[in-house]
Amino acid sequence: MSKQRLPILSLVEDEGACCAPLVCEPLSETEAAELAPLFKAIADPVRLRLLSLIACHEGGEACVCDLTAAFELTAPTISHHLKVLKQAGLIDSERRGTWVYYWLNPGVLGRLSAILGPRVTAAVS
Amino acid sequence: MSKQRLPILSLVEDEGACCAPLVCEPLSETEAAELAPLFKAIADPVRLRLLSLIACHEGGEACVCDLTAAFELTAPTISHHLKVLKQAGLIDSERRGTWVYYWLNPGVLGRLSAILGPRVTAAVS
Repeated sequence: MSKQRLPILSLVEDEGACCAPLVCEPLSETEAAELAPLFKAIADPVRLRLLSLIACHEGGEACVCDLTAAFELTAPTISHHLKVLKQAGLIDSERRGTWVYYWLNPGVLGRLSAILGPRVTAAVS
Repeated sequence: MSKQRLPILSLVEDEGACCAPLVCEPLSETEAAELAPLFKAIADPVRLRLLSLIACHEGGEACVCDLTAAFELTAPTISHHLKVLKQAGLIDSERRGTWVYYWLNPGVLGRLSAILGPRVTAAVS
């Protein structure tokens, strides 16, 4: 078994990274079944742009009105994509008066990021 | 415009991170259209497990024989999933004698990881 630290390692809690035992644990069937729908929710050009627009909006949250204005798509289409992202747990929202505001769920996105890297470049190349 | 560093920022080359201007650049339509198929390739439980099995295999590469043995699926099904990952550029392969060997493409996986984080937790929460 290789002692390299590789991306999937990041699923294991990374406490005391400098001294943690270097074990590589492939994803279980259960973990893979949990993660696949999250990546599927991201795997759409409109939803990727929605995530980045929310992330880059002032204060890290965006009104649905600003998000809709950024696309040549109808409001119901944007709402559908926001609903997919919210159901996957990637974003959260709150109504304030007329508008609904959206922000990222950093825990879920951070978990997905950790699974794909970021040590992969150093470890594999 | 917020000056927070957020995940999508990582698309911008991170040279001299300490002193780089803190700008947030949402994904363009073109970038989102390029990235969505990569996430789609990952968004499958079998392909997620294949990626993690390859990553955790000794030396960071795995024989198709070892990969097939880890699943209760036929060899043609595993080959199909490996082909999807290879066509997306997430893995690469080489035939050596009887078997084909696979390894991760750290550049592509690292790019996807950077887009989803890893600063998101600190920046947004």
